[in-house]
Amino acid sequence: MKAAVLHAAEDLRVEDLAEREIGPDEVSVRFAAGGICGSDLSYYFKGRVGDFALREPMVLGHEVAGVVERVGPKVEAVKPGDPVAVNPSRPCRTCDYCRIGRGNLCRNMRFFGSAAIFPHVQGGFSETILAREDQCVRVPASMPLRVAACAEPLAVSLHAVRRAGELLGRKVLIAGSGPIGMLCALAARRAGAAFIAITDLVAEPLALARQAGVDETIDVAAEPERLQRYEADKGFFDVALEATGSPKALASLFKVVRPGGRVVQLGMMPPGDIPVPANMLMAREIDFVGAFRFHEEFGTAVEALARGLIDVAPILSAEMPMARADEAFRLAADRTRAIKVHLHF
Amino acid sequence: MKAAVLHAAEDLRVEDLAEREIGPDEVSVRFAAGGICGSDLSYYFKGRVGDFALREPMVLGHEVAGVVERVGPKVEAVKPGDPVAVNPSRPCRTCDYCRIGRGNLCRNMRFFGSAAIFPHVQGGFSETILAREDQCVRVPASMPLRVAACAEPLAVSLHAVRRAGELLGRKVLIAGSGPIGMLCALAARRAGAAFIAITDLVAEPLALARQAGVDETIDVAAEPERLQRYEADKGFFDVALEATGSPKALASLFKVVRPGGRVVQLGMMPPGDIPVPANMLMAREIDFVGAFRFHEEFGTAVEALARGLIDVAPILSAEMPMARADEAFRLAADRTRAIKVHLHF
Amino acid sequence: MKAAVLHAAEDLRVEDLAEREIGPDEVSVRFAAGGICGSDLSYYFKGRVGDFALREPMVLGHEVAGVVERVGPKVEAVKPGDPVAVNPSRPCRTCDYCRIGRGNLCRNMRFFGSAAIFPHVQGGFSETILAREDQCVRVPASMPLRVAACAEPLAVSLHAVRRAGELLGRKVLIAGSGPIGMLCALAARRAGAAFIAITDLVAEPLALARQAGVDETIDVAAEPERLQRYEADKGFFDVALEATGSPKALASLFKVVRPGGRVVQLGMMPPGDIPVPANMLMAREIDFVGAFRFHEEFGTAVEALARGLIDVAPILSAEMPMARADEAFRLAADRTRAIKVHLHF
Amino acid sequence: MKAAVLHAAEDLRVEDLAEREIGPDEVSVRFAAGGICGSDLSYYFKGRVGDFALREPMVLGHEVAGVVERVGPKVEAVKPGDPVAVNPSRPCRTCDYCRIGRGNLCRNMRFFGSAAIFPHVQGGFSETILAREDQCVRVPASMPLRVAACAEPLAVSLHAVRRAGELLGRKVLIAGSGPIGMLCALAARRAGAAFIAITDLVAEPLALARQAGVDETIDVAAEPERLQRYEADKGFFDVALEATGSPKALASLFKVVRPGGRVVQLGMMPPGDIPVPANMLMAREIDFVGAFRFHEEFGTAVEALARGLIDVAPILSAEMPMARADEAFRLAADRTRAIKVHLHF
Repeated sequence: MKAAVLHAAEDLRVEDLAEREIGPDEVSVRFAAGGICGSDLSYYFKGRVGDFALREPMVLGHEVAGVVERVGPKVEAVKPGDPVAVNPSRPCRTCDYCRIGRGNLCRNMRFFGSAAIFPHVQGGFSETILAREDQCVRVPASMPLRVAACAEPLAVSLHAVRRAGELLGRKVLIAGSGPIGMLCALAARRAGAAFIAITDLVAEPLALARQAGVDETIDVAAEPERLQRYEADKGFFDVALEATGSPKALASLFKVVRPGGRVVQLGMMPPGDIPVPANMLMAREIDFVGAFRFHEEFGTAVEALARGLIDVAPILSAEMPMARADEAFRLAADRTRAIKVHLHF
Repeated sequence: MKAAVLHAAEDLRVEDLAEREIGPDEVSVRFAAGGICGSDLSYYFKGRVGDFALREPMVLGHEVAGVVERVGPKVEAVKPGDPVAVNPSRPCRTCDYCRIGRGNLCRNMRFFGSAAIFPHVQGGFSETILAREDQCVRVPASMPLRVAACAEPLAVSLHAVRRAGELLGRKVLIAGSGPIGMLCALAARRAGAAFIAITDLVAEPLALARQAGVDETIDVAAEPERLQRYEADKGFFDVALEATGSPKALASLFKVVRPGGRVVQLGMMPPGDIPVPANMLMAREIDFVGAFRFHEEFGTAVEALARGLIDVAPILSAEMPMARADEAFRLAADRTRAIKVHLHF
Repeated sequence: MKAAVLHAAEDLRVEDLAEREIGPDEVSVRFAAGGICGSDLSYYFKGRVGDFALREPMVLGHEVAGVVERVGPKVEAVKPGDPVAVNPSRPCRTCDYCRIGRGNLCRNMRFFGSAAIFPHVQGGFSETILAREDQCVRVPASMPLRVAACAEPLAVSLHAVRRAGELLGRKVLIAGSGPIGMLCALAARRAGAAFIAITDLVAEPLALARQAGVDETIDVAAEPERLQRYEADKGFFDVALEATGSPKALASLFKVVRPGGRVVQLGMMPPGDIPVPANMLMAREIDFVGAFRFHEEFGTAVEALARGLIDVAPILSAEMPMARADEAFRLAADRTRAIKVHLHF
Repeated sequence: MKAAVLHAAEDLRVEDLAEREIGPDEVSVRFAAGGICGSDLSYYFKGRVGDFALREPMVLGHEVAGVVERVGPKVEAVKPGDPVAVNPSRPCRTCDYCRIGRGNLCRNMRFFGSAAIFPHVQGGFSETILAREDQCVRVPASMPLRVAACAEPLAVSLHAVRRAGELLGRKVLIAGSGPIGMLCALAARRAGAAFIAITDLVAEPLALARQAGVDETIDVAAEPERLQRYEADKGFFDVALEATGSPKALASLFKVVRPGGRVVQLGMMPPGDIPVPANMLMAREIDFVGAFRFHEEFGTAVEALARGLIDVAPILSAEMPMARADEAFRLAADRTRAIKVHLHF
């Protein structure tokens, strides 16, 4: 089978790989659509994501959907021909975190397309994907598989929104209108947020956010005072979601979240220490919490897409063949032109 | 009436003050015992607490107990002769925070002995204290009023422990074995913590902590590796309570709290930015939350003391007359000799 | 001023009443629209609501909106000419429940148009309404005051939905498609419910529910098996909201809510004991919880209406002058013809 | 190996059974102590527990501890010679409930000594017990294995206490002072309850409860008014734990739990409908919730016993050889003479 293998920064090759044997509880899925994620971009351009450097060739990709080809003898939930969204998260099911229902913190996680462990876990940008039965979630035949491939980033956003606590009637600020920030806005609205503002340094995605129903968009490069006015009276927002990975963006959030509010970190920050106003956090009883990947939210995401409760159309920017992967990665990295770019073979 | 009035750093005068008229829902309490708190020490030695500088003479003190002398015409809950612990917290009861039960975040808070607003709110180190009815909580006649005066710092600790989430069977680390750290240890045990460790840079309070039943005491100056070994396997503690106000102590906590765990900031940090490993907080889904003062926990504290469920004897270091207040403040600031020092007239 | 005063069952008289003096923190509101609630109907037809019998003439009504006429000297939040939704709930702000943010359980509650205490608390169906400042919530000038008057039943529904716990992605069943059941469906969708089913014994409101976007409507009189099939595999729904007050309806809910799910009682049941499968509740760890009125949800309701996040148009059945109040009450009681009927002077 | 096999009501035979082959992730434990539980008594005397009737011979017992004899090749956590408490709960780890951390609700649960499924799951009253690695929790060598065998009922009680919500400073009522009620009292105290009352119809266990530190014991047969006086002012207790399985006891709890409080059902009620004051539950916003078995609380229980944080000595009534099992069952059923009876081979 063909796969998009990264050998080093900016050295992505579509090449032939041998297929691994299917396990008794595994499913073989024929790739139909794969979204390029921020971590794929980081591997592609820098050869690393945070502390995790590429140490051997690795197939990229973890936002994938396709059609079931074959199933192992123990598989019951899906059958050949079923269209599925593939959950790239494969927790061990036996460690202490799995046991208490926090599979995203699994001690033995095997997450598609990640250099966090060695040998690396190969990703999903390959003609055929082998996944455990519970990783394959059936989608309606009518759902475009490019939409199904959005279940993964939507799951990330739904998880962050759940980490934000109850949102019904709340005021929510989202820092960053990249794919995750945009999906966080859609997820926050779905969860009942009454007022949603989103920030960015680039005008184009903010315009898209307005079209997607965000109440206020703030270009913090062009008009920083629009955000600052929310600092009055000890802050305005009940919740802020940090989806940029920028320490400067994070610093701005603590000023505009009201006492008793919550700041959720889901963007990947630079390794090491980031300045946080700890004394203000104490005196205002602000919660600063992390949100990492997702667990049961993958199923929630598929259902929300299937029922039309969340519409990801505003973030679907382009679809390109794997043969033009380099071009696709460059497009995906250009925030003035694209939110989410998908690949197909 | 006489009161201990701070005019400037290290200028504390016991002088005569006029008494304010008693309101219809107010109670006049004759002072019996008052504990010296860390913020009293900060005002006394530096003339300020964090951002709040002394701008006019202010009576210090907010850990006080005494005996009811007179009550306003609408008061029903206490009567003259009742021994009471005086809650220094007086939320407005009408703002949005009071309305949702977070009175400690009240927008119009009047907290005894605080320069946070101007004119300052006078404190409780005076022969007679005027407090609203709901600030006066009756204690058993058999309870030493010095113990009753500990209800306030115990309430702070109980509130922090509640902000830490469920503690039944959990492993808890407390940074700092000053009065609040010690009371946090007692409160965490009462709340069901299975294993409690406490740190300090000074040997004497650690010895007291051992006597008070803490499972492990760690002198991070003498043997830092004792704490570091808990960094293995992504951390050991479910919860850490930061009660030192030291950025260095805080930094050590994020390394030893396990994924999904929680760090509670209750010590007063230096104003401004403190380094926090935001990326680790994200990837491990750690909660970093503030705990500020207390609300209904004052009543919980009085009841725990009255029923003997928490024994504050280990922290009672000395009792001195108000006339020797300067000496008392110096003793209270010497961590090798004292945990909590009380004053009386 | 004129008011709709109930003297006995089916003896409602529009008569002149003297106006009470306005208090310093009170607001005088000129009545514009008032919705007839199930409890108004119960007083009107039976002279009682559950255990609370009419013991003196009482003005009915607690779903009211109007325009501010005069304000007491301490009022800051509204001014004459402001259109407002009037919150009929007036908790004391000082009891133990108010103190912890559960004002709906206030020990000294004065709720408009209720015979729960004696003398009764007069209701809002009068030309002029006197309310405390915090009971008056400004609405946009563009909002029809009939819609503003829906803030109260919507607040009831939002409160019930919050008592149901997190709804994002959940499956919700609502028993009863009267005004509260319908608003619960809208509120559950707003809170993120993925699938919503509603039941009734009458076809007409079910048809309206379908138009309002409910996923499945079940006529339990005509086709009881449609609900029963959800009993398979230990139940299907994550949450059920009981909004009928019928013991039979309640019994059906425990069978179709999955283990770990929740049943919320908000309909008024007959006084006394109702059969509940306590052993099943234990073995399946089902939560059976009550939802009573609302607290901060009144503000949430106004904001949701103002921002167009919840559209109450589907339940607005008719508007009639107070002079035809008897006719309006009869219409409101006819479930084949009306969901919510409003009155005006 | 020998085992205590129940063939029918009151027909318990200690007979030879063939040993099952050890699995790769299984542990063979030599039985040292086994406690007789209420469900064992129900099988023994009635041949059934609730709806689950004995349909084939079944080894009884699920409160067991022993010493590891052999381990399968994949076992890492324990080794031969280790003393262990055996967790009788074996969830499947793959169903939807296991996935979200509610293993006690597992769809494919195999719980020792239960006729809930057919063929029945054999129990632990046998010379050798085969358990999955994660079911075997090491205990200190110094811990009597009779104490280790109490981990299971203690886990049930800890789980119920957790289902009761936060207990720090709360007032707790426990209905029934059998083994589970007694352990609930100890667990509630450990979790921070400020005041604990317990009821029973029999004097002897109440006397033991007093010795174990319960604040008030109430003989509801001899002095029912002692409980009734707590009905004043809409109730007194924050939480009530129903550990009798008696509808009459349950009815009494709703009257003495305050508004906003919680009633936890953990006793096994008769099948079918039980009268519950649903209208009062609604108007007082009482939570009525089930507590079923336990999940991670087994580990919590072992640790609490190992650290001496909970002392089960007050409930250890007698220890008898398996050869006298009939006598032991009769003793265990006599509430005037025994709380918990243990067996050994």
